[in-house]
Amino acid sequence: MSLVAVGTVAFDDIETPAGRAEKVVGGACTYISLSASYFVKPVQIVSVVGDDFPSDVLAFLESRGVDLAGLQIKVGEKSFFWAGRYHKDLNSRDTLDTQLNVLANFEPVLPAAYKNPDVLMLGNLVPKIQMDVLDQLDQRPSLVVLDTMNFWMDIALDDLKAVLKKIDVLTINDEEARQLTGKHSLVHAAQAIHEMGPKYLVIKKGEHGALLFHHGQVFYAPALPLAEVIDPTGAGDTFAGGFTGWLAKTKDYSFENMKLAVIHGSAMASFCVEAFSIDGIKNLTQEMIDARVEAFARLVHFR
Amino acid sequence: MSLVAVGTVAFDDIETPAGRAEKVVGGACTYISLSASYFVKPVQIVSVVGDDFPSDVLAFLESRGVDLAGLQIKVGEKSFFWAGRYHKDLNSRDTLDTQLNVLANFEPVLPAAYKNPDVLMLGNLVPKIQMDVLDQLDQRPSLVVLDTMNFWMDIALDDLKAVLKKIDVLTINDEEARQLTGKHSLVHAAQAIHEMGPKYLVIKKGEHGALLFHHGQVFYAPALPLAEVIDPTGAGDTFAGGFTGWLAKTKDYSFENMKLAVIHGSAMASFCVEAFSIDGIKNLTQEMIDARVEAFARLVHFR
Repeated sequence: MSLVAVGTVAFDDIETPAGRAEKVVGGACTYISLSASYFVKPVQIVSVVGDDFPSDVLAFLESRGVDLAGLQIKVGEKSFFWAGRYHKDLNSRDTLDTQLNVLANFEPVLPAAYKNPDVLMLGNLVPKIQMDVLDQLDQRPSLVVLDTMNFWMDIALDDLKAVLKKIDVLTINDEEARQLTGKHSLVHAAQAIHEMGPKYLVIKKGEHGALLFHHGQVFYAPALPLAEVIDPTGAGDTFAGGFTGWLAKTKDYSFENMKLAVIHGSAMASFCVEAFSIDGIKNLTQEMIDARVEAFARLVHFR
Repeated sequence: MSLVAVGTVAFDDIETPAGRAEKVVGGACTYISLSASYFVKPVQIVSVVGDDFPSDVLAFLESRGVDLAGLQIKVGEKSFFWAGRYHKDLNSRDTLDTQLNVLANFEPVLPAAYKNPDVLMLGNLVPKIQMDVLDQLDQRPSLVVLDTMNFWMDIALDDLKAVLKKIDVLTINDEEARQLTGKHSLVHAAQAIHEMGPKYLVIKKGEHGALLFHHGQVFYAPALPLAEVIDPTGAGDTFAGGFTGWLAKTKDYSFENMKLAVIHGSAMASFCVEAFSIDGIKNLTQEMIDARVEAFARLVHFR
């Protein structure tokens, strides 16, 4: 079982109704790989940082079974930086600052040991880079999952559509599904997205849960109502890590098992939002994860 | 088994992205009673109309087992009228016109046969009128359910809080729960609402489903993803009708059975939004309702 994850490893400044966190560890690939590490080892990451990125965080990721062979460290350069402020409802946010730094000229290079993964998780990045990674593989993985965002639909739609043709599962939020297809009904949006390539679609709805579509079949995993949401940053990536980690562990890519992957992704995301940065998912145990999955089962059980 | 339902019987002008409907049948009590009639008979309604309200609609309601003894018909007066336009997302709407007409001086009068219901459904109305109905009962029903809206929180909060002390189940939407309690977390809002009186809280989230809270226990019924939503008007009332109809039929007011009530309410609401006015719930069969409930079970089943 092997999982390759591509995406950013970065610093974030975050402001939420619960408080502020400055220059904390962030980045899609950080959340994805840490979350997936609870299900599968190694998680082989493809990313780039500057020499300002703390070595103890990298050592921590390695201790969790994250393989850093595909992580480029650019001497004399700075890591990607994002600053954002969440609105009171925690469902929307403003970007206050984006400093591409090492990401400006990022060219992913896959080590030889990365070229035959069972599952490939293409985290939110420039679609051309996502395609570049696909092109470097020796053979097509059993499952390719891609996360993206409205920003790429605005400025790189053709590139995005080209890579969508080559993947199995797309994860986006409900507004992005509507933007990508021009259809308000998520049922119709799912049909349109299937026609673009992905045979599975996960629609992430934050506090309202997640929907899984597969050619007319649908599964709804609600989100666990939480007493305190401290920081939503990385929740979608943490979901993706749990989702792909579960699938890489079980190697069963059926609709039935993908439902369980959605539940495990949702469980991991529910830990993520309970603290700033990666703090909510740094020290989990199998017992804690199992108990959270049980809470999801109880939440929807009605007979 | 008996159910008394209080609320408006009215005309609506409705504009949605799917089209327009003019002077169609509406009103909370219309939707509640028609929806409940699929579970329990009679449904005894307390409401008021003018002599402009079509007699064939009243005859249809009677044919469904709705008892009109508590419906006042004011000769020479006009029925309550509401006009609204839904936004593209169908989750929000603008009120274009409200003509109180007969509702301006509505004084509910409960016939003797109405004074000992098992279940009382107080549809969205002036809180003082809801209290007036409670005061006319011979004894407290086994279950009192109340629906309200942000409008009454704005202009009659003290009256609303007084009636909340006397009920068992409150049904409101997520923003209203936050407004009523000043708490963003729905878990904390539920605790605050329990302290106001209701031991059960149903939070209606439209396309995102419904949450049932009961002193630390929580149940999440997702909404069925529908290909076409034509008209959301009356969905919450139709939910309330299915919810209270199920409870009046089964007379089991446990948390476990209330989950089933939420599912049946959600199933009825999913029919409601598929057509304008009451058209989506006029001609249902037990088989259609059972099949919809099965669809809800499949939607969330994951092992």
